[in-house]
Amino acid sequence: MEASSSFVDEALLNRVPRWNRYLEAKLGFRNHWYPVLLSRDITEAQVVPTTVCGEEILLKRIKGQVKALRNRCLHRGVKFSEKVESYTEDTITCWYHGFTYKWDDGKLCDILASPDSKAIGRRKVKTYPVQEAKGLVFVFVGDDDAKVPPLSEDVPPTFLDEDLCIQTAIYEVDSNWRVGAENGFDGLHVYIHRTSELVENTKRSLPIGHLADSSKLDILETDGEPKGIYDLFAHHVSVWEGKVKGQTVVTGIKRESDKPTRTTAASIWLPCSLRVDNFPDQGINQYEWYVPITADKHLYVITLGKYAASDEERAAFEHEFWSRWKPVSLENFNAQDVTARIALQKFYRNDNAWLDEMLIEGDTPIIKWRELCHRHARGVQKPEHM
Amino acid sequence: MEASSSFVDEALLNRVPRWNRYLEAKLGFRNHWYPVLLSRDITEAQVVPTTVCGEEILLKRIKGQVKALRNRCLHRGVKFSEKVESYTEDTITCWYHGFTYKWDDGKLCDILASPDSKAIGRRKVKTYPVQEAKGLVFVFVGDDDAKVPPLSEDVPPTFLDEDLCIQTAIYEVDSNWRVGAENGFDGLHVYIHRTSELVENTKRSLPIGHLADSSKLDILETDGEPKGIYDLFAHHVSVWEGKVKGQTVVTGIKRESDKPTRTTAASIWLPCSLRVDNFPDQGINQYEWYVPITADKHLYVITLGKYAASDEERAAFEHEFWSRWKPVSLENFNAQDVTARIALQKFYRNDNAWLDEMLIEGDTPIIKWRELCHRHARGVQKPEHM
Amino acid sequence: MEASSSFVDEALLNRVPRWNRYLEAKLGFRNHWYPVLLSRDITEAQVVPTTVCGEEILLKRIKGQVKALRNRCLHRGVKFSEKVESYTEDTITCWYHGFTYKWDDGKLCDILASPDSKAIGRRKVKTYPVQEAKGLVFVFVGDDDAKVPPLSEDVPPTFLDEDLCIQTAIYEVDSNWRVGAENGFDGLHVYIHRTSELVENTKRSLPIGHLADSSKLDILETDGEPKGIYDLFAHHVSVWEGKVKGQTVVTGIKRESDKPTRTTAASIWLPCSLRVDNFPDQGINQYEWYVPITADKHLYVITLGKYAASDEERAAFEHEFWSRWKPVSLENFNAQDVTARIALQKFYRNDNAWLDEMLIEGDTPIIKWRELCHRHARGVQKPEHM
Repeated sequence: MEASSSFVDEALLNRVPRWNRYLEAKLGFRNHWYPVLLSRDITEAQVVPTTVCGEEILLKRIKGQVKALRNRCLHRGVKFSEKVESYTEDTITCWYHGFTYKWDDGKLCDILASPDSKAIGRRKVKTYPVQEAKGLVFVFVGDDDAKVPPLSEDVPPTFLDEDLCIQTAIYEVDSNWRVGAENGFDGLHVYIHRTSELVENTKRSLPIGHLADSSKLDILETDGEPKGIYDLFAHHVSVWEGKVKGQTVVTGIKRESDKPTRTTAASIWLPCSLRVDNFPDQGINQYEWYVPITADKHLYVITLGKYAASDEERAAFEHEFWSRWKPVSLENFNAQDVTARIALQKFYRNDNAWLDEMLIEGDTPIIKWRELCHRHARGVQKPEHM
Repeated sequence: MEASSSFVDEALLNRVPRWNRYLEAKLGFRNHWYPVLLSRDITEAQVVPTTVCGEEILLKRIKGQVKALRNRCLHRGVKFSEKVESYTEDTITCWYHGFTYKWDDGKLCDILASPDSKAIGRRKVKTYPVQEAKGLVFVFVGDDDAKVPPLSEDVPPTFLDEDLCIQTAIYEVDSNWRVGAENGFDGLHVYIHRTSELVENTKRSLPIGHLADSSKLDILETDGEPKGIYDLFAHHVSVWEGKVKGQTVVTGIKRESDKPTRTTAASIWLPCSLRVDNFPDQGINQYEWYVPITADKHLYVITLGKYAASDEERAAFEHEFWSRWKPVSLENFNAQDVTARIALQKFYRNDNAWLDEMLIEGDTPIIKWRELCHRHARGVQKPEHM
Repeated sequence: MEASSSFVDEALLNRVPRWNRYLEAKLGFRNHWYPVLLSRDITEAQVVPTTVCGEEILLKRIKGQVKALRNRCLHRGVKFSEKVESYTEDTITCWYHGFTYKWDDGKLCDILASPDSKAIGRRKVKTYPVQEAKGLVFVFVGDDDAKVPPLSEDVPPTFLDEDLCIQTAIYEVDSNWRVGAENGFDGLHVYIHRTSELVENTKRSLPIGHLADSSKLDILETDGEPKGIYDLFAHHVSVWEGKVKGQTVVTGIKRESDKPTRTTAASIWLPCSLRVDNFPDQGINQYEWYVPITADKHLYVITLGKYAASDEERAAFEHEFWSRWKPVSLENFNAQDVTARIALQKFYRNDNAWLDEMLIEGDTPIIKWRELCHRHARGVQKPEHM
C-alpha cells in the first residue's frame, strides 16, 4: 500500500459521521490489547512469529516472560524470522548483517559485521507490551508513546476472575474481523444455528430469532473500564415460528423442560471480543475474540470459562471442553458462524458495501456497537503502521 | 472496484469520440437481452446462479416460466445461492436471517427471524425480465425503469423464425467479450482457419483473407429493429495466395466443385451476436453470442440454425449437430477462434491497447461496429451496477 | 498499468533528489545493453522469446547473427511467439492475419491476408540492436533514435579481454534487480557467507564484514567508458570477530596460510553488473549481471573469467567451472545471495521501503552507486515502454 490517504474513500467516510472510524478500521483499532496465541504454544526460549492488525511481530519467551519485537530489521527491512539467530538469551541477531537487538527494549546493541557503527546504542526496533492471562498471550498494538491501559480494560468483564477456569481453541478465518464481531452480536443470526448438533446435545431450546429492546441495551462507557454493550436476553422478544405468507415453514426448538434457561445474554467489547453468558450451557460463559490479522483474515480465539474451586473441578472442565464442547459447539455451532462470515466477506470486502447494506430493527445493537467503537477506540490502525 | 470514475481513463475515452461508449463497455451494454443458459439446463423448480455483465443473478423455473432475481440479499449482501432455501414454490428465503422474497416481483414478503419488521412489504430485490426462445434462456440486464424492448430487437434477424430449428452448445472463454465479437466479424482472420478439419470435411473452398468493400456494408439502424452491420461476401475481394516478397508461401483452398458457395455473409448485432450465413455448410446459419461475464471472461454461445419442416427433419439436424458440427466445427474451427481471443486478451486487457492497435483497411467493418455500438447501445454497464 | 504518472509516487521521488532516477528504475535503465541468454541456447534459425526491462522481445539467429524484434504484432497486439510462422529465413509472419516483418529492420513487408494494404512497407515493428560476446547474447533496450554506444561501455572493464575465457550459468530470481545489485556490492553481507562450502573448499580466509574507506572508493565516470565504482579491499577494515555485549559469538575464518589473498576488490557498473576480483579463487574474476525482467524478477547471469593462452587451458577452466565452481560457488555461495534477495524483496517491493530503510556507514558504497546511476543512466524504463 503506497499511501494511507486512499485506505478508505473519504466520500464514504463522510456518509457515516457517527461511525466512520469503524468503517476505516479494516485493520482493527490501535492502542489496544489483542490475544495472539496460547501460552502453552510458546515455551521457554522459543521464538514465534505472528501478525496482528497487519503488523508482523516476533515473540520470545525469556525467563518465563514473553517479549515482543517488530519482526523487521531496521537496516534493510528483512524479517528476523527468515532465519532466527539467538547468540544470547536476551538478544536477537539479524541473519543478514548481524544487527543485534535487545528483546527487552528493542535497542540496537551490536552489529556483528560492523562493530564500530554509530547507530549502535542509538536506534531501536519497535517493542510491544506483552501480558499473559488465562493461558493466552496478549500483545498491545499501539504507538510508542501510548499510555498502556491495564489488560482488564480490553477484555470482557469477568474474564480475568481468579477462580474462572478458561479453556481455549484458536482458528484462522478468511474474513475481516468486523464481519466476525457483527455476526456474533447479531440477535437474528441464531436462524442459522437451528440445525446445530448442540441443540440436541444440550437438550436446549433455540428460537429462530430474537430482537433486543434497544431501549434496554446497556451501553458501558465508564472511564477506565471495558467499553461495551450488554444485551440481556430477558428483554428480548423471541421468535419461535418462521412464516412465509402466513404459513409456518421453520420452527424454533422449544422444550418444556428447558429450565434453567440457556444463553442469558450477549455482550460485545472493544477492541474485538464477545461474551455469551450461559453458553454453550448453563454455568459456562463463552468469551471470544476476532483479532485482525490482515484486512481479509482474522484470528478467531474461542474460550470457554467456568468457575472452578478445586483442581478436580478444573480437570473435569478441561475434559469436558475437549471431549464435548470443542467438537459439538466450537467445531459445529461456531463453525456455522465461520461459514456465515466467509459469505459476508464477499460483500463487505468492498468498502461501498457498508453503505449498501439494508439493516433492520433487529440490527440496532450492531449500529450501537459501531458507534461505540467510533467514540471509544483509542486509534485506528492504518497502512502506515504496517 | 471502489469508484466508477476510474473505470476507464477519461483521457483515453476522449481520444475516441466516435466509439468511446464501446471502449467503456468492458462489462457490456446495459438494457439489453443476453442468452445465459440452455432451457434444458433449468428444469422445473431448479435454482441456477449465473453472472451476466458482472451482475450475479439467480434463476428459477416456476410453473414452466423462468424467473430471475439479483443473487444478493438486501440485508447483509450474502448470496442466496450459498445455501438455497425454498419454503414455497414462488419465494426464496435467505439462509442467513430468513429474508424471504417473491420470485415474481422481488418483494420482501417475510423475514423469518424478524416477522414484524417494517421493511416487510416495502423493499424489493432487483428482478430481471426473462424470456425463452429457441431453447435458450434470455435475461434482460438493465435499469428498473427501462422500457424493455422485444427480444427480437436484440437477436440477429431470422433467429426467431418459427420453422428454424436451433441446436446450441455453450463455452466459457477467458477473454473480454469485445475481443470475441471483433475476431468473429473480422474478414481477415480466416487466415487462422486454413488448417481446420472443417475445410476437408465439407470439401469447401476457403480463402486466406477477404476484404469487405466498406462502401457496400449495410449499416442497419432502423428504430425498433435489430441494430447491426451486414457484410455480404459477394462484395468481397478474396485472397487466395499469401505471398512473402513475391513468393507464394501460403495458399487458400479453392475447389472447382465448390458450388454452391459456402459462407455467403457475416453480420454483427447489438448487444453481442454474430450471424454467419451458410456456415458451417450450405443451408445452415451460425448464430453466436459473446455474452459478458466479467471484464475478462465471456460466455460463448454457439447455435446452428436450419429450416426444418417436420419432426423428422428436426431430428436429422439434431443428429447432424452432435455427430458432425459440434466436433468438426464448434470444437475445431471455432476452437481456433477461442485460441485467438485468449491471445488477444493479453494485449487488450490493458485499456491503452485500444489506442495502440494498428488497424488496416480490412478492419473497417470492425470500426463501423464500434461506432454502431456507440450510437445505439441502450446503456453502458459500469461497476456501480455490480 | 494504465498511466505512467503513478509508477512511483512523486512525493517519494522528491525526498531523494540525488538518486530519484534510481528509485524510479523498477524496470531498469533504458538505452543500455543487457545480456539475455547464452549464445549456445539459440542455434541457427531458432526463435527464442525473452523479456528484458518489461519488454517482450523475440530473438532469431539468421546466418549466424542474432536478430531481435518486439514480440508483438503491430496490428492487434498478439505475440508472434504464440505460434511462430517463418516462411522465409529473414521474415517472421504473425499467425493471426499473416502480417510479415523483416527481422533485419522490422519493416512490415507483406500481409498475407491483405496483400494490397497501404500499411505494407510503411510501418515497422521495433527492432533491437544485438551483439554477442563471450558466449552471451546482449540486447540494447532503448529508444529508436538512441545513439547506441559500444557494448564495451556497458560491461565491467576486462570482461571483453581477448584472452579471457568466460564460463556462464544463468538463473531467474524473484526479486527486483536493484536488490540483487545492492546485495552484491554490499561489503557487510559477507556475514551470510560464513557457512558456505566455498570457504573450506578454497581454504580461504573470510571475514564476517568489511568496511570500505569511502574516501578511497574510485568513482569511474569518464565519458565513453564504463560508469562504475571500484572498491579495493586493500583499503578495507575487515571484521573478524562478531561480538554481542563484548562476548565473541561469531568468528570469521582466518588462515595463516591464506596467501595470496582471495577476493581483492568488488566493483559495480551501469546498467546492472558487478565484478569481483580474484573470486571465487585467486586468478579468476566473477562478472555478474542482475538483468531486470519485470519489477519483481531478474535474470541472474553469473560468469567466471580466467585468462587462458591455449585451448588446453581453456578446456581445463571449462572443466573446473562445471565440476567445481558451479556446485561449490554459484549454487552454494551465490545461492545464499539469492535467498537474501528474496527476503529483501518482501520489504523493498513497497516503494516506501526505500525511504524507511536505515543505512549505516558500511552502506556508503551503495548510496554512491545509487547516485552514480542517477547521474549516468541513459534513461529510466517506464510502463509506457512496455
